[in-house]
Amino acid sequence: MIHNFNAGPSILPNEVFREAADAILNFNNTGLSILELGHRTPVFTAVMDEARSLAKELMNLDDDHKVLFLHGGASTQFMQVPMNLLDLKDTASYADTGVWSSKAIKEAKLFGKIDVVCSSKERNYRFIPKDFAVPNDAKYLHITTNNTIYGSQWQSIPTTSNVLVADMSSDILSRNIDFNSFGLIYAGAQKNIGAAGVSLVVINEQILGKTKRPIPTIMDYRNHIAEGSMLNTPPVFAVYVCLLTLRWLKKLGGLSAIEKINNEKAALLYNALDSNDLFQTHVVKEDRSKMNVCFTMKNSDHEQLFQDFAKENGVIGIKGHRLSGGFRASLYNALPLSSVEYLVELMQSFSQKHG
Amino acid sequence: MIHNFNAGPSILPNEVFREAADAILNFNNTGLSILELGHRTPVFTAVMDEARSLAKELMNLDDDHKVLFLHGGASTQFMQVPMNLLDLKDTASYADTGVWSSKAIKEAKLFGKIDVVCSSKERNYRFIPKDFAVPNDAKYLHITTNNTIYGSQWQSIPTTSNVLVADMSSDILSRNIDFNSFGLIYAGAQKNIGAAGVSLVVINEQILGKTKRPIPTIMDYRNHIAEGSMLNTPPVFAVYVCLLTLRWLKKLGGLSAIEKINNEKAALLYNALDSNDLFQTHVVKEDRSKMNVCFTMKNSDHEQLFQDFAKENGVIGIKGHRLSGGFRASLYNALPLSSVEYLVELMQSFSQKHG
Repeated sequence: MIHNFNAGPSILPNEVFREAADAILNFNNTGLSILELGHRTPVFTAVMDEARSLAKELMNLDDDHKVLFLHGGASTQFMQVPMNLLDLKDTASYADTGVWSSKAIKEAKLFGKIDVVCSSKERNYRFIPKDFAVPNDAKYLHITTNNTIYGSQWQSIPTTSNVLVADMSSDILSRNIDFNSFGLIYAGAQKNIGAAGVSLVVINEQILGKTKRPIPTIMDYRNHIAEGSMLNTPPVFAVYVCLLTLRWLKKLGGLSAIEKINNEKAALLYNALDSNDLFQTHVVKEDRSKMNVCFTMKNSDHEQLFQDFAKENGVIGIKGHRLSGGFRASLYNALPLSSVEYLVELMQSFSQKHG
Repeated sequence: MIHNFNAGPSILPNEVFREAADAILNFNNTGLSILELGHRTPVFTAVMDEARSLAKELMNLDDDHKVLFLHGGASTQFMQVPMNLLDLKDTASYADTGVWSSKAIKEAKLFGKIDVVCSSKERNYRFIPKDFAVPNDAKYLHITTNNTIYGSQWQSIPTTSNVLVADMSSDILSRNIDFNSFGLIYAGAQKNIGAAGVSLVVINEQILGKTKRPIPTIMDYRNHIAEGSMLNTPPVFAVYVCLLTLRWLKKLGGLSAIEKINNEKAALLYNALDSNDLFQTHVVKEDRSKMNVCFTMKNSDHEQLFQDFAKENGVIGIKGHRLSGGFRASLYNALPLSSVEYLVELMQSFSQKHG
């Protein structure tokens, strides 16, 4: 039995693996593999339509908010967002809460004036800034709702009169928030939505079409909306894995149900860390991520020992990101509570031995 | 038994389907699905490395030519190529041999001056232009080696002192040509390389770094070369399907072996069309595509009849593209000769009945 705490690509529900494997051998009793299916055949357009409509339903989106499944990962969105929303003379505001935020900032600078309205960089990204102002004329405010590398998360979404844009790659669909308050949301699928190779993008179409820059066809969100995410050959199989994962999430009870489970998993692990003398966390309590729990050992000699102990006992993916070191346990939607209970038991046995 | 003549996504070898399904349940005896595998784990970096090196070996590329697996499909390359190779004041030459060429031309116009040096558009793209000159100062000449919609193909690659760029989406790896004579080659994977959701790009790195335009990080080929196609999370599963298909192709004997089979398949079908009074083809003989065989019925009343007859008998994917009408049988690498023999027999029975 393996307990997979990978930061992404990461664990998905077992039934998704089974159904995905079946579809590769014989998709929906067509006698064809999903890999050899034309993307404009009714059997696949039904997959795309259901995936988009399930995402809309789960996020409770209004009709202005369009759901897209696009090629390219969130790193492409770092460029595509300002290309669509910002003219060179315009200003956009960005909150810098981690490496991914700062990558988004770097790309946006090619397309307009970027105003970093707040940053936690000087304190090694250990908190989420609360006290900042966004200029009225900023075309949008960009936030990264969860910071995978440092383990911090916006527990409440800032209220702003500006268009709100969010990179939700590592916490989308993990909790019930007002998704309609965002102008644009993007997320690589490979954590909570499905497999690597596709991104979910949600856009309030009212915010589009306001810039003068000529936009390449494949980068213009309006074209993808008009074509229902079928402007070019979509990443067929990756979209299907998203559909299977969204179905699983709906069956489980949707975002309120998964939020309750995610809260329970995070509380269990943080409590174990707080009450164990060998381990320590660094993010301020109120900003702790419920998706990525980052920690170190007080005695750095223990780190390799605990790493080995975890591995011997079937726990994988808990090594921290190279930029932050230590450990990171990712508790994405598909990770069962039992895996967190198991990790907590390992921490306790380790501390009885080495404490 | 289904005979899959889909134009793409299209048929792949049966063993690729079996191995891909296995990897989703348990990848290489890791006890993990390939969908939950971290992309920086040694088991996956080995996949990426082998896929890149097999592509290099099969295409007999020299060390200046780098192989990349990128997100985004060929439609993204329409933009990415001129973004990397062309300054606004520069000129690039394009050959217009079909809808995909003209889409590439449209996107390139955002990045520089585009000189359409030849076009077969006025004759409905029924031939490949031979008599054209490329200005010495053109930064590159862009061709589309195979025209999926109209069924024409460059049977010999133009010799030019300019950098040669090719969209090979629908005939890459189908024949032995001098791939080192190209500065840049791109191809969506969903025909001859693997599944939808990834593109193969081959670049002579000597042609890069010569423009002044600031290039977004994710669009700059140099970054992808430096990071070995792991600049961001790659489309993990789609890359693995490419690897499986490349292994199959190598085992079969590589490009010379597949070219022989492809020649045989195409000859069989074109001979049947040429010798049957009910059917007709439109592309001039010397420019006929060996990948996509397009044809119509002399009596248009026969078209729906033949479509239904083929379908009843397990032949799928032969409906022509909506722009060209009629029929299109795609004979990609993985389509067995026996499927072509079967289609030819159906044509003969049909013509005995209706001729």
